[in-house]
Amino acid sequence: MPMRGTIIHGPGDIRFEERPDPTIIEPTDAIVRTVATCVCGSDLWRYRGINEVPQPTPIGHEYVGVVEEVGSAVTSVRPGQFVVGGFLTSDNTCPLCRAGAHANCRNRTGYDGCQAELIRVQNADGTLLATPERPADDLVPGILALSDVMCTGWHAAVCADVRPGGTVVVVGDGAVGLCGVLAARELGAERIIAMSRHADRQAVARRFGATDVVAERGDAGVEAVKELTGGVGADSVLECVGTDESVAQALRSARPGGMVGWVGVPHITDIPQEHMFWKNVGLRGGPAPARAYLPDLLERVWEHRIEPGEVFDLTLPLEKVAEAYAAMDERRAIKALLRP
Amino acid sequence: MPMRGTIIHGPGDIRFEERPDPTIIEPTDAIVRTVATCVCGSDLWRYRGINEVPQPTPIGHEYVGVVEEVGSAVTSVRPGQFVVGGFLTSDNTCPLCRAGAHANCRNRTGYDGCQAELIRVQNADGTLLATPERPADDLVPGILALSDVMCTGWHAAVCADVRPGGTVVVVGDGAVGLCGVLAARELGAERIIAMSRHADRQAVARRFGATDVVAERGDAGVEAVKELTGGVGADSVLECVGTDESVAQALRSARPGGMVGWVGVPHITDIPQEHMFWKNVGLRGGPAPARAYLPDLLERVWEHRIEPGEVFDLTLPLEKVAEAYAAMDERRAIKALLRP
Repeated sequence: MPMRGTIIHGPGDIRFEERPDPTIIEPTDAIVRTVATCVCGSDLWRYRGINEVPQPTPIGHEYVGVVEEVGSAVTSVRPGQFVVGGFLTSDNTCPLCRAGAHANCRNRTGYDGCQAELIRVQNADGTLLATPERPADDLVPGILALSDVMCTGWHAAVCADVRPGGTVVVVGDGAVGLCGVLAARELGAERIIAMSRHADRQAVARRFGATDVVAERGDAGVEAVKELTGGVGADSVLECVGTDESVAQALRSARPGGMVGWVGVPHITDIPQEHMFWKNVGLRGGPAPARAYLPDLLERVWEHRIEPGEVFDLTLPLEKVAEAYAAMDERRAIKALLRP
Repeated sequence: MPMRGTIIHGPGDIRFEERPDPTIIEPTDAIVRTVATCVCGSDLWRYRGINEVPQPTPIGHEYVGVVEEVGSAVTSVRPGQFVVGGFLTSDNTCPLCRAGAHANCRNRTGYDGCQAELIRVQNADGTLLATPERPADDLVPGILALSDVMCTGWHAAVCADVRPGGTVVVVGDGAVGLCGVLAARELGAERIIAMSRHADRQAVARRFGATDVVAERGDAGVEAVKELTGGVGADSVLECVGTDESVAQALRSARPGGMVGWVGVPHITDIPQEHMFWKNVGLRGGPAPARAYLPDLLERVWEHRIEPGEVFDLTLPLEKVAEAYAAMDERRAIKALLRP
């Protein structure tokens, strides 16, 4: 029986279908049997018809699983190991990876759909990280979160220059924003203001370290941040949405001399420069260099110092993937975990 | 006899005129008798008619001099001391100054024209820094450079995250860009690529630490930087011009994951976001927090570890200020120093 995987056929049209089993093509490939996968906020751009779906396309880029087979050149993982990989592959050896910019690896690739029973992982040595042993089941969601959202929240915090004792605002209460709160706490922020108007997400934000929650947006949201920061604004702002409104709100929430880390995939007309130069507010970010952060973050998860798996508030069998999309689209779930 | 000072009446119309002596208005004021002042690249925006001159306006914001008189609340400088101050005043006590963002001090002010014989300095305690003793004459240009261009070049390097061993590109070969080269060297950069097509400026860049000089601009300039950096681009780029072309060139010269420090006063239509997010290239900068950098930089100048005064390649009597503007406008001089 061939494996099954998720195909997006068009807006709102997610199907779980039989597909050919992936095989080793390059000697640097690995085949991973999925233990858990999930739906990303960025997958919703196509689901909602904001990004085009020109043809039926395998979808999904987050996974943990067990190595089934490796190509002849793979040396750092072996069949039977439990592994996690980032949402883009990287060789971990090119000049950009050596500079820590793994998301821009010269040999990076995406995946042919990770919401599937089997996954072909290119650049296996430079992408996959094996756990010390097969994890207990309660560790799986936390490790899965490292394949994208926790690395992405961490990247936002690093780019926003979060420092011990600092004040941080997090714009966006999706899984990435919530992981950004957790990252800010781990990096020593003293004050963490989560922008959120959903009670369930506010609760996770609090557990992840938010000291304040602001429900307002736009002008009112900026005003509330100013009030909480003595009229000054935040040292660091994490932009985890990607719209014109959220980018402007993030820049305006920073104090003069502050820094905005942006990781929300931008769907913006332009960067509002009027909030930058004269205020000395900077902007840095992009896709997270997952492999750069994975070793440190895996250790934090493994030792239960962080529990990013709490962003998953819905677990479904993989074959119910269409329901996972619908639940996230309708905001009935923060993030859905899928198990084959 | 009243003092004399420089008034810009309109594009190309610089006059040295009698003006009322400045007086102490606030108890935090000081009056400084100018020892040296200079013309800034940003003064040329009005001289060239790019920025408007709605009415005759005193001009100039760079100076060193001797304190003549202080207000009753001033405690850190006293009459007779030789002082330097930044191009904006700062109180050095507000929350923004405490965060190092002196250029955005809540009580910041500009000046009523520093290309003059006497200058009123507001926020004297938080702005002026006295030298250990009256400097030898050969130190005066270097100290004067700290009132703007050296602090601004330093700010570009700090914002561009220049680190020991790093590769740096400097876009702009005006006095600020040249000081940026010097700052990059002091911050430990290993490779410093100066973009310059003027032999005199290239020579200063080399003396300041440039390891490579690239004369090309635009696409060809970006290509040359790529060739010099193994196809990767620079870790840090200093944008010291402020035009659409220079900002785009700076962003494109950075490697993925790199950082652009921008200090060229922006006269741009928009920030080209296509060179940022997906390349993980950041942008940070603005007016330099001069007072934050002054103590460190004054020490470096005082001990002759840096000689930023080399950017002055023309010295004129203050009353010849109109000729100083003309020489800089026509690029006959990098930067003109004026002595009363």
